[in-house]
Amino acid sequence: MKIGILTSGGDCPGLNAVIRGVVLKGTTTYDLEFVGIRDGWRGVVDADFFPLTRHEVKGLSKVGGTILGTSRTNPYEGSRGGAENIAKTLYGHRIDGIIAIGGEGTLAAADRLSKDGINVIGVPKTIDNDLRATDYSFGFDTAVNIASEAMDRLRTTGDSHQRCMVAEVMGRHVGWIALHAGIAAGAHAILIPEVPLTIDDICELVTKAHDRGRAPLVVVSEGFKLMGMDEAFSDKGLDAFNRPRLGGISEVLAPEIERITGIETRATVLGHIQRGGSPSGFDRVLATRLGLHTADAVMDAEWGKMVALRGTDIVRVPFAEALGELNTVPRYRYDEAAALFG
Amino acid sequence: MKIGILTSGGDCPGLNAVIRGVVLKGTTTYDLEFVGIRDGWRGVVDADFFPLTRHEVKGLSKVGGTILGTSRTNPYEGSRGGAENIAKTLYGHRIDGIIAIGGEGTLAAADRLSKDGINVIGVPKTIDNDLRATDYSFGFDTAVNIASEAMDRLRTTGDSHQRCMVAEVMGRHVGWIALHAGIAAGAHAILIPEVPLTIDDICELVTKAHDRGRAPLVVVSEGFKLMGMDEAFSDKGLDAFNRPRLGGISEVLAPEIERITGIETRATVLGHIQRGGSPSGFDRVLATRLGLHTADAVMDAEWGKMVALRGTDIVRVPFAEALGELNTVPRYRYDEAAALFG
Amino acid sequence: MKIGILTSGGDCPGLNAVIRGVVLKGTTTYDLEFVGIRDGWRGVVDADFFPLTRHEVKGLSKVGGTILGTSRTNPYEGSRGGAENIAKTLYGHRIDGIIAIGGEGTLAAADRLSKDGINVIGVPKTIDNDLRATDYSFGFDTAVNIASEAMDRLRTTGDSHQRCMVAEVMGRHVGWIALHAGIAAGAHAILIPEVPLTIDDICELVTKAHDRGRAPLVVVSEGFKLMGMDEAFSDKGLDAFNRPRLGGISEVLAPEIERITGIETRATVLGHIQRGGSPSGFDRVLATRLGLHTADAVMDAEWGKMVALRGTDIVRVPFAEALGELNTVPRYRYDEAAALFG
Amino acid sequence: MKIGILTSGGDCPGLNAVIRGVVLKGTTTYDLEFVGIRDGWRGVVDADFFPLTRHEVKGLSKVGGTILGTSRTNPYEGSRGGAENIAKTLYGHRIDGIIAIGGEGTLAAADRLSKDGINVIGVPKTIDNDLRATDYSFGFDTAVNIASEAMDRLRTTGDSHQRCMVAEVMGRHVGWIALHAGIAAGAHAILIPEVPLTIDDICELVTKAHDRGRAPLVVVSEGFKLMGMDEAFSDKGLDAFNRPRLGGISEVLAPEIERITGIETRATVLGHIQRGGSPSGFDRVLATRLGLHTADAVMDAEWGKMVALRGTDIVRVPFAEALGELNTVPRYRYDEAAALFG
Repeated sequence: MKIGILTSGGDCPGLNAVIRGVVLKGTTTYDLEFVGIRDGWRGVVDADFFPLTRHEVKGLSKVGGTILGTSRTNPYEGSRGGAENIAKTLYGHRIDGIIAIGGEGTLAAADRLSKDGINVIGVPKTIDNDLRATDYSFGFDTAVNIASEAMDRLRTTGDSHQRCMVAEVMGRHVGWIALHAGIAAGAHAILIPEVPLTIDDICELVTKAHDRGRAPLVVVSEGFKLMGMDEAFSDKGLDAFNRPRLGGISEVLAPEIERITGIETRATVLGHIQRGGSPSGFDRVLATRLGLHTADAVMDAEWGKMVALRGTDIVRVPFAEALGELNTVPRYRYDEAAALFG
Repeated sequence: MKIGILTSGGDCPGLNAVIRGVVLKGTTTYDLEFVGIRDGWRGVVDADFFPLTRHEVKGLSKVGGTILGTSRTNPYEGSRGGAENIAKTLYGHRIDGIIAIGGEGTLAAADRLSKDGINVIGVPKTIDNDLRATDYSFGFDTAVNIASEAMDRLRTTGDSHQRCMVAEVMGRHVGWIALHAGIAAGAHAILIPEVPLTIDDICELVTKAHDRGRAPLVVVSEGFKLMGMDEAFSDKGLDAFNRPRLGGISEVLAPEIERITGIETRATVLGHIQRGGSPSGFDRVLATRLGLHTADAVMDAEWGKMVALRGTDIVRVPFAEALGELNTVPRYRYDEAAALFG
Repeated sequence: MKIGILTSGGDCPGLNAVIRGVVLKGTTTYDLEFVGIRDGWRGVVDADFFPLTRHEVKGLSKVGGTILGTSRTNPYEGSRGGAENIAKTLYGHRIDGIIAIGGEGTLAAADRLSKDGINVIGVPKTIDNDLRATDYSFGFDTAVNIASEAMDRLRTTGDSHQRCMVAEVMGRHVGWIALHAGIAAGAHAILIPEVPLTIDDICELVTKAHDRGRAPLVVVSEGFKLMGMDEAFSDKGLDAFNRPRLGGISEVLAPEIERITGIETRATVLGHIQRGGSPSGFDRVLATRLGLHTADAVMDAEWGKMVALRGTDIVRVPFAEALGELNTVPRYRYDEAAALFG
Repeated sequence: MKIGILTSGGDCPGLNAVIRGVVLKGTTTYDLEFVGIRDGWRGVVDADFFPLTRHEVKGLSKVGGTILGTSRTNPYEGSRGGAENIAKTLYGHRIDGIIAIGGEGTLAAADRLSKDGINVIGVPKTIDNDLRATDYSFGFDTAVNIASEAMDRLRTTGDSHQRCMVAEVMGRHVGWIALHAGIAAGAHAILIPEVPLTIDDICELVTKAHDRGRAPLVVVSEGFKLMGMDEAFSDKGLDAFNRPRLGGISEVLAPEIERITGIETRATVLGHIQRGGSPSGFDRVLATRLGLHTADAVMDAEWGKMVALRGTDIVRVPFAEALGELNTVPRYRYDEAAALFG
């Protein structure tokens, strides 16, 4: 049996470990043959394949990024896209099935292709931890570690200058990275998309920490929405054209916090460093195990499913469980952390 | 209500984060009062207490070790030990209950004290991950990260010299650290207490990796028992007096592997560096959450229970669930990893 | 003899190690007495002093930031400033001399105070490495390590997405951090204040790397001046009001590189994480040695001088040697690195 | 011109960065051709060569170990060794000169080969920093960082248990790693080959630290010689056969310290983790610069010399300057550090 593997969407520490896990188990235990598909669904549509043997995956458990390349191509778009064309391409190259490692968009496409008769098995990938159906996905733990360490560094500057530091972390729709990194770093305020706050709420937390002699640390998800922000900006005569150029949300918050509290405040956007580099031990183990179990699932012809972490076990679930709704931070988890704010 | 907190047994990254979580939530949400108990049960027996306010726990989430100190004292031993004496001591200091953070021995003592009428709540602590009743305990993730990084380093030396490297990690009775660090580092053999092997089994794995052009990496738990070792040593005329002085199991294995396979082999005992230093993000979050929930459990007067991780939730379980049997590596988890050996 | 110690200007990994070195040697070898001066020259002017014993400096060699606090106050400004007032303040508190740890502004002030009769010894502090008279100062090595690691991370993302990554590092007037971190990370272009380039020069380097199949990495000092930038912006009708809001220089470069080369390009501003956190081994040793030698210099009454690194030795030099001109990257060092661009 | 490159002796972080620096500058600036020589002098003797283009050195600045492999072969030994045979081999493969990256043995052999008419340029390699003629060599800074971090970890355990921790680091003949790592980690005793001490001297330092409430940290070079050790062992009836099996010097010291001071004491041998893995920023820059300058030296036909660091410059020196005497820790550098012991 010949199986294609692709990685799709933003890169994430652990992708290579998944690929290695699949290929090692698939070739040594099951005698499967693999091809690498270049740049996600683009490679499927363009038939951009190359042989993937255990030699190519040597030493990959600790290597960040993806040796397959990635893109945001939708397999249903373009003149060569769509299930029928893809089926022909795969048949022409004698590829019996696809392992698709990706986030919500990828898994939705995989689900649709699967219903359209293509053999697909999914591996959930979300550095933001925004997918339901899996307790965690690889990359998230590494991102939390990087963000926590960065905030440990920011704190020494905050303490030395008695400044408020605002650290902006990933999390477009869900606040998991901010929540965990904020708990880990001992933040005095954690701002996440799920819990809108006003600038006054935030300044109250900042002032409270400052009054206790601490240099306040505010962690904010990139997707946090400040309550009343639109009104505030329209008051200042700033229009839509100007606002995006203000940069991340932390760069909006910092000057406002400084203006209202009188405490010198600096913003730092952690950005791409959160998603690159060598995975943490946790992510290497999780990604490798997902890869190993994906090879098993291929042998069991469990097409139309994805592998997932539940407790300490790897399980198989239908794509549908991961789709539809995002894995948002539940209110009780936010409240749990808020007890630390003081 | 006044509550004493103690840490007992070997130190572990995350102890301070638990203490901080308990004290922050207990003082700001519940108006509890805390005393630190010095050096585990010794401090209970000797009435060695000091006030523990939120000021003392400032900034502790990232600090390794324990500000309370620790010891291996058994609270039932000595002339001032035993439930009756302890009850008097606690009453005399108006201490209403104890939070005991420790491993199997500590939790067993806590269980017994609890049955003898002392108010105790437990927090599981095991860097080896050898306690049932909790999916993971804090410290384990940090140890796996440290061991994985150390092995990444060993590999470059192995590769440059075409040597076999034997890395000895913690794990007296269970092989979790070896299993996870071995998967993370891409080891060619993982040797754990749960799965006895002969020297020939090991050399076969080493030779197989070497024949594929790899510098073999062997990870071994300190508690691994080599099948046939006693016979081998008695053949060489080494008696019990001599053997312990040979050092760790890795120092027994390395020369044997070199002798049998002809591949130059070096042993490294990671030792105490695995248990010190700043906790990983995962461990900081887990430890902090355990601390927060322990404060809740105190308010609910859930004496005789311990907090634990199940999936992504913190739950309360009777001490008994953690006692009796160790959390060993199940055979299917070893076999899962063995598929990577090639 | 009673000596005050102050830290001034931006914080820097190693400040605490200097303080510890001075205090340990001063108290145990020489029987000196120390007071900490809070927040740089502000504490001198405001007589904000506190006793500084070996107890306060315990364990500080590895701690980032400064336990003394820092500010950018000029000792000659304000109603209580100036040499005469300061002399009175110091006399009133029986302080015989000041150890001033700071950058160019601090050392210039120290020089002036010294000439005005105040006993001052200086310790050079510049994370940018912009001071002459010392081969390196502490903090620089740590910043290069942090920047190099961050760029290792950025590269995996660049490689996975075939993107150009632009990393902006510290260096307002000199390009040392960009030069060293760029060499360390294998950058394809290093942009420093000392070597102005046009956007076309930069795009040529980016395209060359891309044509060789690499994901181009561009490292840029925050103080890099793009040749022709003012003209370019005025062509687009952007006025002075709009430009500063565009953020750092990397955020100016990235869209231009993408527009001209057609290669997807992302900017990351490393910002404050470069100056916080635990110092590297090199910086701990350098800072500690500077501290130890400063205590010696106090005993030798070498007022009006600063300690400095020359080769592997710590020497004493007049303040003047560090002032006037900055330690810029010489052209031959840039050309040396440019040979790596390909 | 065709040049062979070899790495010899123990591996060291930065070897690959030197190779990359030579090859990038040599091929892009000078049009040199390179061959890799496998496993040090063995590859010269056995004519084990392979083409080394810029493609092979891609991304190597951050990779530990050596892609060329290494060995301890002496080029003057064996039937195919000796200057005459080597000259023939090189001539037969049209190799015009050799770049030899190695330690004292390698440089001595290079010197002799050079005098025997072979074109050789040297690059000093010594993780112990034991070579004169260069201020530092690559690898040393990385080793100090690893050892410092490991000791930061050991300290938390020491503090929690009020134990004395003995950390054994590399340094067979010189104590630089112990000296720098000991200063960096705030050790209470630093034991180096250059300064013999008795067990009583050591215990006095340990007791002094303990009396101040500290958990004593002792750093010891593997090559430290305990004064009076031979006598002590013969008193116990231990003969030469038994002693080597006692392990490293730290394992000799720990029980003696515990016995004499009554303070619980643990030994940790850091071992091979000090020499592997990704180089620090400092080492990447130094190694890359040495490589770049070696390419220049080849073009200038500076055979019989080695490149070296002096202050911030790379210079060329005759082999002889590095040979003969080792770069030991001078007494004033030890005394400087001893002021910190308290």
